[in-house]
Amino acid sequence: MAQKILFDTDPGIDDAMALLFALASPEIEVIGVTTVFGNVHTDLATHNALALLEFAGRPDIPVAQGATRPLHITFDEPATLVHAANGLGEVFLPKPTASPDPRPAAQFIAEAVMRLPGEIILAPVGPLTNIALALMLEPRIVERVAGVVLMGGAATVNGNVNPAAEANIWHDPHAADIVFNAGWPVTMLGLDVTMTVQMDDAYFAGLRSSPTGEFIYAISRFYLEFHRQVYGLDVCHTHDPSVIAYLIDPTLYTVEYGPIRVVTEGIATGLTLWDRRGKWRRPNAWTDRPAVGVCLGVDAPRMLALFRERIIGRHRSEQSDDF
Amino acid sequence: MAQKILFDTDPGIDDAMALLFALASPEIEVIGVTTVFGNVHTDLATHNALALLEFAGRPDIPVAQGATRPLHITFDEPATLVHAANGLGEVFLPKPTASPDPRPAAQFIAEAVMRLPGEIILAPVGPLTNIALALMLEPRIVERVAGVVLMGGAATVNGNVNPAAEANIWHDPHAADIVFNAGWPVTMLGLDVTMTVQMDDAYFAGLRSSPTGEFIYAISRFYLEFHRQVYGLDVCHTHDPSVIAYLIDPTLYTVEYGPIRVVTEGIATGLTLWDRRGKWRRPNAWTDRPAVGVCLGVDAPRMLALFRERIIGRHRSEQSDDF
Repeated sequence: MAQKILFDTDPGIDDAMALLFALASPEIEVIGVTTVFGNVHTDLATHNALALLEFAGRPDIPVAQGATRPLHITFDEPATLVHAANGLGEVFLPKPTASPDPRPAAQFIAEAVMRLPGEIILAPVGPLTNIALALMLEPRIVERVAGVVLMGGAATVNGNVNPAAEANIWHDPHAADIVFNAGWPVTMLGLDVTMTVQMDDAYFAGLRSSPTGEFIYAISRFYLEFHRQVYGLDVCHTHDPSVIAYLIDPTLYTVEYGPIRVVTEGIATGLTLWDRRGKWRRPNAWTDRPAVGVCLGVDAPRMLALFRERIIGRHRSEQSDDF
Repeated sequence: MAQKILFDTDPGIDDAMALLFALASPEIEVIGVTTVFGNVHTDLATHNALALLEFAGRPDIPVAQGATRPLHITFDEPATLVHAANGLGEVFLPKPTASPDPRPAAQFIAEAVMRLPGEIILAPVGPLTNIALALMLEPRIVERVAGVVLMGGAATVNGNVNPAAEANIWHDPHAADIVFNAGWPVTMLGLDVTMTVQMDDAYFAGLRSSPTGEFIYAISRFYLEFHRQVYGLDVCHTHDPSVIAYLIDPTLYTVEYGPIRVVTEGIATGLTLWDRRGKWRRPNAWTDRPAVGVCLGVDAPRMLALFRERIIGRHRSEQSDDF
């Protein structure tokens, strides 16, 4: 039976890749998409989510618009340098015909989880504001989610906004600290495992045999150019699709457990500081906090093969006689 | 020709091991010892430094007493659980007969460096307060030291006070941020390389063939017991001697370079946050800061062999016909 997920997102080029990856995977049932600021402003995130679902032939999946700003700090600015002003690398999909769900994302999340206890995994790939707000609105969802599998943070490597902070956590460190410490099962796919999975031009070219792959190839142009200009790389990092890969096949990843606190002040704001050691001579800010599953290793070739297989449509062989 | 060093210290069991290691090594000339709070209060650090020098037959080496508290925060408390109330594992040396130099440590350091430009390496193995104060007193020492080789911090692993902070940096994070960013050549021997060099009971027993080794064996009893009780380990970590090992033979270590900022507020206070990546889309707190040499790997067996060789006196074969 497919795993139901709520996909919380700020599309975003790699968000789009992740959503299309999920929609192409029979192991996953996307029961709703919620939107948040981050790579783009929230209204554009909602527009892009609706457009992507219609492109994928899934206008039936509801989209609920979420937070337009962080809990306690000011929204820095959209990452237009990374994702372009339209969030999708200046590739323009048809204007969506569907409208968003009237409920705010946090309410949408809380109601969905309460309605289907134990069945839903929250899969946020943007700032964690909506997830923290859903928790505040309905604290009982802690017991009723099947888990939280998120893209964000960096446990053993530098951030990508600055040496301390990964972008999703940077955008709302207070929300992130709430989500990591709520007491529900959290799995973190951070830069530790998303930066070691690298897609180059040849990889993207190899996706073009399906319409979905052709779209991903098109949006990857801008993303590759960003990685080239800022990092001097001929590859781009595979951030958000990692969450979907983990949900499909967790054996792709090695995981260790320990509490994570998020720094909310000073030069290290946005740092996901992980207690990997666990034994201390005095209590500290990590003491008695819940353990988070931190992904530290990934079988990159196998993850890349899985993504390609789904995007070019090979899994459909199980459902039809095209092959 | 031997490398002249100023050894800044808060003895401390591993401080004592480091000092005796330096005194037994012909590559190093300890031209002065300066004391600081940390493992013990400063007056006890001075007492222990004098006693250790007399034990080693080197009452000629001057000891200058230094800071009794951090630059901007309150001194937490001495680490009596780690080093015992007397700082030397309840092993008591004869009361020293020499008196400390009348100058404060910072002045002693500044004057020594100005007198011998290019010749002195500062080797601090405690909180960096004296070094920061010497810089404030006489900024020209930046150009006149041969370098700073310090034990402190943790670039890629948790701290040892809490997940963020290593003890030396924790005790005075503001001083540490000054020292890392002064613009002189700094090499950091942090927990990344000091925790992977482990001494067990058998190792200490193997040192007992010399009086120095017998003393180290005696003080190691308390230190091993601390590691056993708090960490559940049958070994202890080799923190401060790592600085001396590096000075004798830097090829024991692998080093990478990048700026380090020290967090001075919040739950991550005392974190040595290293920019290992170097390429950012916007300026940040690490931008244009000087690169620090960060030791990341160590040949532990070879380091342990070097320490034993010096402590049991084998190097004296070059100077006598005992062997």
